[in-house]
Amino acid sequence: MNTMLDNPRAALMVLSSIVEPGDADLDDLIGEAGPVGAVEALWSGQVTERLARLSGATVAAGPDPARRAAALQEATEACGARVLIPGDADWPVRLCDLYRLGEDDDPHLRPPRCLWVRGEGDLAAVCRRSVAVVGARAASEYGKHIAGWLAADLAEAGHTVVSGGALGIDRAAHQGALGRGGSTVAVLPAGVDRPYPRANQAMFDLIVQRGLAVSEWPPGTAPARHRFLARMRVIAALTAGVVVVEAARRSGALHTAEYAARLGRVVMFTPGPVTSSLSEGVHRLARQHRGARLVTRAEEVIEDLTGRTDSTRSQPADVTPFEALTAVEQWLVEAMPRGFIAEDTRLAAAAGVPVDAATEALQRLQHRGWIEQINDGRWRLRAVTGS
Amino acid sequence: MNTMLDNPRAALMVLSSIVEPGDADLDDLIGEAGPVGAVEALWSGQVTERLARLSGATVAAGPDPARRAAALQEATEACGARVLIPGDADWPVRLCDLYRLGEDDDPHLRPPRCLWVRGEGDLAAVCRRSVAVVGARAASEYGKHIAGWLAADLAEAGHTVVSGGALGIDRAAHQGALGRGGSTVAVLPAGVDRPYPRANQAMFDLIVQRGLAVSEWPPGTAPARHRFLARMRVIAALTAGVVVVEAARRSGALHTAEYAARLGRVVMFTPGPVTSSLSEGVHRLARQHRGARLVTRAEEVIEDLTGRTDSTRSQPADVTPFEALTAVEQWLVEAMPRGFIAEDTRLAAAAGVPVDAATEALQRLQHRGWIEQINDGRWRLRAVTGS
Repeated sequence: MNTMLDNPRAALMVLSSIVEPGDADLDDLIGEAGPVGAVEALWSGQVTERLARLSGATVAAGPDPARRAAALQEATEACGARVLIPGDADWPVRLCDLYRLGEDDDPHLRPPRCLWVRGEGDLAAVCRRSVAVVGARAASEYGKHIAGWLAADLAEAGHTVVSGGALGIDRAAHQGALGRGGSTVAVLPAGVDRPYPRANQAMFDLIVQRGLAVSEWPPGTAPARHRFLARMRVIAALTAGVVVVEAARRSGALHTAEYAARLGRVVMFTPGPVTSSLSEGVHRLARQHRGARLVTRAEEVIEDLTGRTDSTRSQPADVTPFEALTAVEQWLVEAMPRGFIAEDTRLAAAAGVPVDAATEALQRLQHRGWIEQINDGRWRLRAVTGS
Repeated sequence: MNTMLDNPRAALMVLSSIVEPGDADLDDLIGEAGPVGAVEALWSGQVTERLARLSGATVAAGPDPARRAAALQEATEACGARVLIPGDADWPVRLCDLYRLGEDDDPHLRPPRCLWVRGEGDLAAVCRRSVAVVGARAASEYGKHIAGWLAADLAEAGHTVVSGGALGIDRAAHQGALGRGGSTVAVLPAGVDRPYPRANQAMFDLIVQRGLAVSEWPPGTAPARHRFLARMRVIAALTAGVVVVEAARRSGALHTAEYAARLGRVVMFTPGPVTSSLSEGVHRLARQHRGARLVTRAEEVIEDLTGRTDSTRSQPADVTPFEALTAVEQWLVEAMPRGFIAEDTRLAAAAGVPVDAATEALQRLQHRGWIEQINDGRWRLRAVTGS
């Protein structure tokens, strides 16, 4: 029971290799004990019954945490990847908007614990001006044409095109951006060393050379159904807005739009023939989400991304986006354990902020709807329910 | 200078044969002197210089008013038509919403003086549940298919389909409704005896048999550019909502949508491929008019027509539609001379309402933004400027 870890990055890698992202129990544990403490608790069995059940076999059968971390680090380096954790300079602050959305019954709305990244760029810088272009895998020629054309023009205008690396619309979007020498980010549902689907291998090679491939899962992780859904929240959170190009009635791309709406991102769609089942989901989105903006070309996307009036933003009126917070407020939110209740002195220490400044900033965060005070003088993040 | 007229219907027919609808000077004159008085004023030359110039040649060269009225009546009967005037039981009250929009610089927003109607039905009853389906003349096969299909399903659900009798979308809409045995109304830019275009002659014959053809101009009037625009305000005012199916960037159908928006009607559009220039105007409408609703089938049109929440209605908040007024309020508004200032005693008499009741109703109309009080205790209709 002893070759334990000494740094949070290694601990978060180990935790990500054992429990899927978005697990409320583990997030609470990390909030309470820190990443290193959470690893220790898992290995000592001092966790909830559920967490013990989820992690028991891995913990019992596998190597100790330090060896596990070393193996993960080796696999990470072997594929030319690196691991980003919250607080890193190139950790995109936009992801912190997900702190607001964590709810026990929707694990997919919690922020990633860490991200494996392949490619040269600085993820935060690359995503600063970015837009997601997503849609159906079984896209029509029309949809692929529009996605590629939008992405190319967006790239040329200096916007990074973020998508999921899938076939159909995603692929057309990545290729459109690459074709103009633009930057593009693929958020993957599997390890960055085995991007999915294989048919896109040549494109992934180009993305890693000229853009970034990103995953919440360690190298070697296989794609899985729940991972497709999970990565959509990351696509929505990384970007300033989402364009849904084609989507059948139950297309996953609609989830990305829904996450984007809840995160206060600009939700856009390109219309299509009402006779096309591949535009059915897109048109439903337009009818159900009143803030969704119809776009027909890149200039309109940019117009909607930059014209951040209340009526183009789909954000609930009482939410201030993380980006709009002061640095001290951001530090406090980041220091605030997810789902866990914390005292202000503890928060001030964790955020590295004097208690006076922290107290003042906490009042402002409460006023802006980010946090709520519990009756005994402690604070917790306030979840926002979607509209 | 003497074979004058004795009834307002004949007078309005004569006036319509001399001065185009929507003329502010003539409307003011009618308001001041009544229709019969306005005819007398024209023939005696006691009118504004502009009106004298507009009507001079006709008055000087043509028959006297009574003979002119008799000839018009004969032509009307010869083509099986009749003339409706405001106040008739089958005059659609919805047209009175146009009273609100009259502005000197936009004559096309004034209500019609009278309507020539061909066909059996009661225009008011036929239009009670109605929706306009309009769009490009040079429509694509896609657009014509959608217009016909929407109109057919709307007709089957008991809605009258109103359109302009033109080629393309209009024709597909009328035919779609006729094909299901539904009712349809064509609002024409020329006399009801010479519906335009000739290529639609067979369709017009069917419309007159099973629906109604409507025009603001006497039989024999040729189509003209300004008449195309003028009839659009009638299409918008007659219906509860307008669906624009296909429209190029500068399509006239977009004017119908704009009139509809100003009148508080539900504005709807069917999307199309962003690569089609025939959908360009429709998509622009969607971006510029935030209240415009995307519809893909008849059920959605009906949903939007009946779900009259504030957010689906495009109406400015301070406008009460004419239909929502009490009978006394409606009588007063109808009695109020267009653009002319009137005292309340005079209004009460014209509306056939006791002065006390009129005074009370005028206060309510003022509160609801229909009228405004001038400093000397007189009233006038208040124009609404579009948003």
